[in-house]
Amino acid sequence: MQIFMRMIKWTNGTVTTPDQTLLPLKEVTLEIKTVEQMAEAIKNLRIRGAPLLGAAAAFGIALGAYTSKAQTISELLRDLHAAGETIKQQRPTAVNLFWATDRILNIAKTYKDLSVEELRTAVLAEAQKIADEDAAQNYAIGKNGAELITDDDTILTHCNAGELATVEYGTALGVIRHAWTQGKKIKVIADETRPLLQGARLTVFELQRDGIPVTLITDNMAGYAMSKGLINKVIVGADRIVQDAVFNKIGTYSVAILAHTHNIPFYVAAPKNTFDLKHKTTDITIEERTPNEVTHIGNQQTAPNSTKVLNPAFDATPLKYVTGIITETGIYTKEHFQKFNPTFPL
Amino acid sequence: MQIFMRMIKWTNGTVTTPDQTLLPLKEVTLEIKTVEQMAEAIKNLRIRGAPLLGAAAAFGIALGAYTSKAQTISELLRDLHAAGETIKQQRPTAVNLFWATDRILNIAKTYKDLSVEELRTAVLAEAQKIADEDAAQNYAIGKNGAELITDDDTILTHCNAGELATVEYGTALGVIRHAWTQGKKIKVIADETRPLLQGARLTVFELQRDGIPVTLITDNMAGYAMSKGLINKVIVGADRIVQDAVFNKIGTYSVAILAHTHNIPFYVAAPKNTFDLKHKTTDITIEERTPNEVTHIGNQQTAPNSTKVLNPAFDATPLKYVTGIITETGIYTKEHFQKFNPTFPL
Repeated sequence: MQIFMRMIKWTNGTVTTPDQTLLPLKEVTLEIKTVEQMAEAIKNLRIRGAPLLGAAAAFGIALGAYTSKAQTISELLRDLHAAGETIKQQRPTAVNLFWATDRILNIAKTYKDLSVEELRTAVLAEAQKIADEDAAQNYAIGKNGAELITDDDTILTHCNAGELATVEYGTALGVIRHAWTQGKKIKVIADETRPLLQGARLTVFELQRDGIPVTLITDNMAGYAMSKGLINKVIVGADRIVQDAVFNKIGTYSVAILAHTHNIPFYVAAPKNTFDLKHKTTDITIEERTPNEVTHIGNQQTAPNSTKVLNPAFDATPLKYVTGIITETGIYTKEHFQKFNPTFPL
Repeated sequence: MQIFMRMIKWTNGTVTTPDQTLLPLKEVTLEIKTVEQMAEAIKNLRIRGAPLLGAAAAFGIALGAYTSKAQTISELLRDLHAAGETIKQQRPTAVNLFWATDRILNIAKTYKDLSVEELRTAVLAEAQKIADEDAAQNYAIGKNGAELITDDDTILTHCNAGELATVEYGTALGVIRHAWTQGKKIKVIADETRPLLQGARLTVFELQRDGIPVTLITDNMAGYAMSKGLINKVIVGADRIVQDAVFNKIGTYSVAILAHTHNIPFYVAAPKNTFDLKHKTTDITIEERTPNEVTHIGNQQTAPNSTKVLNPAFDATPLKYVTGIITETGIYTKEHFQKFNPTFPL
């Protein structure tokens, strides 16, 4: 795998992307040819990471366009709508599936004068544009966020908000990458991020490959590391940013409280399409995933049979714990949060 | 395995105890016949849990007595001392290895008028007494702690401070067990407790067996569960209690901060032999274990090759985060902490 590769590509009706469930031990490229295959890959986290999910949803609808047997524009629009519904059902919390799907479908609806083949081409062009925009946004996030980073910083990150979570470069890891390429002497501590270990498997993999010093910890070591003075900044990604909170991978909320207690700045790096300021925390459904992810690690069973579990995929970190949100257009801080939500700070 | 079994037994020169690294999937009884075998079992956490380690150390020295070829009392005392050194070297943080070893060796030294065989018998009797005392202390801890528990409590616990961590009954789980047998309608949430998953493997196993409702979470879900109002008390065990802090399994400190932030009482249940009030946090060496525990789960590799890790086995929770310490003689609260440490609260 190359440094700064494009994580998702369209070639002659096939979408290719690494199977992220197999990394780092196996590097397997998925070849996705149908909406159903795309839905399965999203559901089972073969493709994951909020920004990458936006591009995956868009290419999924493009697959719907190219596999459709529609003879008329209205038949094709119906098939695109069905493809969008299939994709949106896979994961309820990440906003990117929704906005990317809606963006493509809304554009498609305006192209009623095109031929079926021209509409297919237009849908694919919009999907490609979504992917290209994501790559560009991440470089901008990296550049903006790197201004916060100084020599000798040790940055904690949770889950994987890296190249593997985006079309290119990463969000939280994009910031780290940009600071590193500026020659700043930084180190990273990565939470392993149970249950699916995106930190251990993906963040460590990416950073090792790029030569950026990284130390892996289990999730329950973050407080210890902060108490020992081993961490002086936290940067994470986001799956959805609402009026009063940041939804991100389960465990982010705990990290934010620990950072707050230790007076460590806590930053979120995310493109502005992650903002969903019409909603607040209580409006959002948190995806509850299969118990097997908690009772097993990979194929290895770790708890007794029929153990009852909780398995929320995300949690909500109130904005009062967030020092700043790094976006492609700049860094939002406490003074801006007031505009998201007139009652801030709650 | 029976309910309220004796976790460690001496029969004709053999110490038997379950191999806790194999639970819950396999129930294998270890037969330990030498000091070296006992040291290996302690080092590799086949035997673990602070109170159980005290009894294991004591029986380990008894094995030293019975396997010694000494012809004279002074030769036997030399061999007992060597056995004690071997055992104490296995784990640096848990105080129980130290006090149990020292108690036996100090008693042995006073018995200079005995024959070699009589001294062997006296050493074994003292080991048995340590084990019996631990069992009795845990029932008393359970009874004292159960007064804090009310109907409809949902109690978070971390790691395993259960029957499997003690000679009988458990400390934190002893409190839960006692409240349950009083008919209180309680539920437990168990942190899985990476890296070695004592919560998933041992706490869930014990509580399921006893019919006490238990839900398993990954360590990074505790904050989420607290924010949702799913937890209203925390009870954990302890490996060493010093003037200003409680040393316990890694992750305890994070749980304590999360409980504090959510105004949830945080209790420690431990026998008084866990107190080491001559020392403070900065005096204590925290055991750093092998990186493989973090990069693997069981035999399954979860992180890239040569990943650098932190792997502290314990952390220190300052007493300011502790609501009370439940012991066999009563519950110590903030007003008592002042006596442990004249500068409390720091």
